[in-house]
Amino acid sequence: MNGEEIKLTLKKYNLQSWSKQKYIDPIPVGKASGIYFWDYEGNRYSDMSSQLVNLNLGYGNKEIEDAIKVQMEKFCFIGPSYGAESRAKLAKKIIDLMPDNMGKVFFTNAGAEANENAIKIARMYTGKFKIFSRYRSYHGSSFGSGNLTGEPRRFALEPGIPGFVKFFDPYVYREAIVFQSEEEAAKYYLTKLEEQIQYEGPQSIAAIVLETITGSNGVIIPPKGYLPGVRALCDQYNILMICDEVMTGWCRTGKMFGFEHFDVKPDIVTFAKGVTCGYIPLGGVAVSSKIAEYFDDHLLSCGLTYSGHPLACAAGVACVEYYEKHNIADQVSEMGKVLGEILEDLKEKHPCVGDARYIGLFSAVELVKDKATKEPIVPYGKDPDGIMGKILGKLKERRFMTYTHENMILIAPPLIITEKQLREEMVKLDEVLSVVDREFI
Amino acid sequence: MNGEEIKLTLKKYNLQSWSKQKYIDPIPVGKASGIYFWDYEGNRYSDMSSQLVNLNLGYGNKEIEDAIKVQMEKFCFIGPSYGAESRAKLAKKIIDLMPDNMGKVFFTNAGAEANENAIKIARMYTGKFKIFSRYRSYHGSSFGSGNLTGEPRRFALEPGIPGFVKFFDPYVYREAIVFQSEEEAAKYYLTKLEEQIQYEGPQSIAAIVLETITGSNGVIIPPKGYLPGVRALCDQYNILMICDEVMTGWCRTGKMFGFEHFDVKPDIVTFAKGVTCGYIPLGGVAVSSKIAEYFDDHLLSCGLTYSGHPLACAAGVACVEYYEKHNIADQVSEMGKVLGEILEDLKEKHPCVGDARYIGLFSAVELVKDKATKEPIVPYGKDPDGIMGKILGKLKERRFMTYTHENMILIAPPLIITEKQLREEMVKLDEVLSVVDREFI
Repeated sequence: MNGEEIKLTLKKYNLQSWSKQKYIDPIPVGKASGIYFWDYEGNRYSDMSSQLVNLNLGYGNKEIEDAIKVQMEKFCFIGPSYGAESRAKLAKKIIDLMPDNMGKVFFTNAGAEANENAIKIARMYTGKFKIFSRYRSYHGSSFGSGNLTGEPRRFALEPGIPGFVKFFDPYVYREAIVFQSEEEAAKYYLTKLEEQIQYEGPQSIAAIVLETITGSNGVIIPPKGYLPGVRALCDQYNILMICDEVMTGWCRTGKMFGFEHFDVKPDIVTFAKGVTCGYIPLGGVAVSSKIAEYFDDHLLSCGLTYSGHPLACAAGVACVEYYEKHNIADQVSEMGKVLGEILEDLKEKHPCVGDARYIGLFSAVELVKDKATKEPIVPYGKDPDGIMGKILGKLKERRFMTYTHENMILIAPPLIITEKQLREEMVKLDEVLSVVDREFI
Repeated sequence: MNGEEIKLTLKKYNLQSWSKQKYIDPIPVGKASGIYFWDYEGNRYSDMSSQLVNLNLGYGNKEIEDAIKVQMEKFCFIGPSYGAESRAKLAKKIIDLMPDNMGKVFFTNAGAEANENAIKIARMYTGKFKIFSRYRSYHGSSFGSGNLTGEPRRFALEPGIPGFVKFFDPYVYREAIVFQSEEEAAKYYLTKLEEQIQYEGPQSIAAIVLETITGSNGVIIPPKGYLPGVRALCDQYNILMICDEVMTGWCRTGKMFGFEHFDVKPDIVTFAKGVTCGYIPLGGVAVSSKIAEYFDDHLLSCGLTYSGHPLACAAGVACVEYYEKHNIADQVSEMGKVLGEILEDLKEKHPCVGDARYIGLFSAVELVKDKATKEPIVPYGKDPDGIMGKILGKLKERRFMTYTHENMILIAPPLIITEKQLREEMVKLDEVLSVVDREFI
């Protein structure tokens, strides 16, 4: 097929995620390498979101591809109750990289299913049924993970599942009150959370699920003391702490896992995306030794055909080894400083930039009509004039590819991006923000 | 790692599906080819369940593996909003193979997610929220698919999702009354279903979800007239008919899809497993043109990172082309006759065989203490003396590998099995059933 045929065939036969199908316009991709991909006319695009924050090592990573080929020589698939070397290796590798309280891994196909199984495990282990999660969060769109999700993408799943309770994230930039310090903010949010725990009844709360750093909903970085405070509340009330590391895991933030920035040990960690960079779908749930031991004698009522898929696990082993061998986390910390400086400059320079939040190579630029009032450039859940689409279009004209969420632009390039590439691309964002200053606010 | 190391590493670091972890004993698999796989000591095992009824073309299919390699040369992954040729090709191919009312495909990672998204789509399209499914069914174990599931594997998901309603399958062999004909049975089950629709209120029922032929719960083949009757009720009450073809699709029953045996056109079809044989995880939801059109102008509130994964779709194209080129469906019909004859012989010969149900290469042998009373060899949901495990052990001694469910043994070998291989393997089952006759009933 040529590019046009691919596009027309997809428009005719394929349903595209999160879209009104009449308006889809998929760019046909012919090849890809590093941080770039090309359409069928030879135009080169820069991937500034690592697709859906999964392609941490970019396109065409030889080590991962070779590992897939080697595994394929043995077999592509064997069921979860048989022993595959790649599955064993990856399970061990993941636990070795986790805090010392962690014990075992249950593998899934991706992040949504990882969260599904995490809450099942939490309910089985605790015998309690309520699950806390946050409004500004995305944990997936299947029924369980979608009921965890706090933003409008869960509406299609309503009426919801009993026992899923939402609380507010520490979204300091837009809080109804102004805090004098991070510590004060943390104290406020922890107090509200504790009140809610008490009013819901700790005896029925199995787990608190949070993206360690809120992802698509705006890279919301918790204030100092917040996550240790959540950990303490979990301990006090006998609630499991589940960190969703689907986006923040695997060096994205400059550490192997996001929670390492905050000195906490979760009871359960969910992961996906960067574990294979999406070369083959894979996700999983890591649980503490204490939880793992419970299932020695109790039925683990979780299962899926492809749990621990051998080909996916082979990709995972190669991918995780690559992070380690090439010190990707350190590299991200370095490059994150550059990104941070650029974002601070853009924030200072452009009236349309209300806030820029960043950690490692994970960042969001929040667009406003007015820096002082913080009025978002589009109202929540609406974009009647298609402004965010137009801004994305301006970036796309410059072959700077990413996605937006509400009034925010996400910047999360592959972790292998060089300083030169990063600076080159951010010039394009700078240009577009100037257009936004002139035309859209 | 050697075999022992793999086993120990998995026992230490990996949580195995549906198990008490203390008792797991994964056979380490070193290589596989056709219908066989080998452990690290060189023992050869025959796969008589196609793993989890997914490995329709067996191990080491060159066409599928080559297609994966070719796609890998271009790229492993690009997001759902971009155009990948393999995704376009597979979407078209699937719709071309479906009845003429079908319009588009939404891709997922596997069957559970296919069912999750099917019910989301049904709710969005109809604006209604109740979902009917059947007690003796398995549709997955994530919250949505697990709430569809009718058997005990859903208990870990309770309290359940509002609006999920169960009805009984046409399980003629164990019905509380005796039918004189298939037609009479169909009429009975359809009458009960219609009553339940009326008492639940058709104005709130979005869809009826059924495995076209019930799979793991015992290969329950609907009596003549049943599925057309369900279709008629759906039309009458404006309810969508969703056929779960995760097991029955892709030639398993001697047709490309199971519903082709019964002359019905579903509104939505879910599929997975055989679409790639599990070489790379893939599933999907095919919807009618009418439903597809609705989403031209309405947001499809479904999405996942790996929707239409390019590498998985490349495997899918090769796999589906293989079914077509090699007339696998016809081959399965032929081999199904042989299997059917053998099973009828076993049923006649062995006191322990209460019923044997089969269609194509999809079959279950139901074990009883007494043919006349039909008392199951183990009570429902229990096996205090571990009898089914012991029977499985006897099969395993003979390297005949499959799985059991309640009092049933599933037989569903790869579709490429030869008559010679099939007869060879079924001799082993015959031997074991003689042991069962002697020792366990």
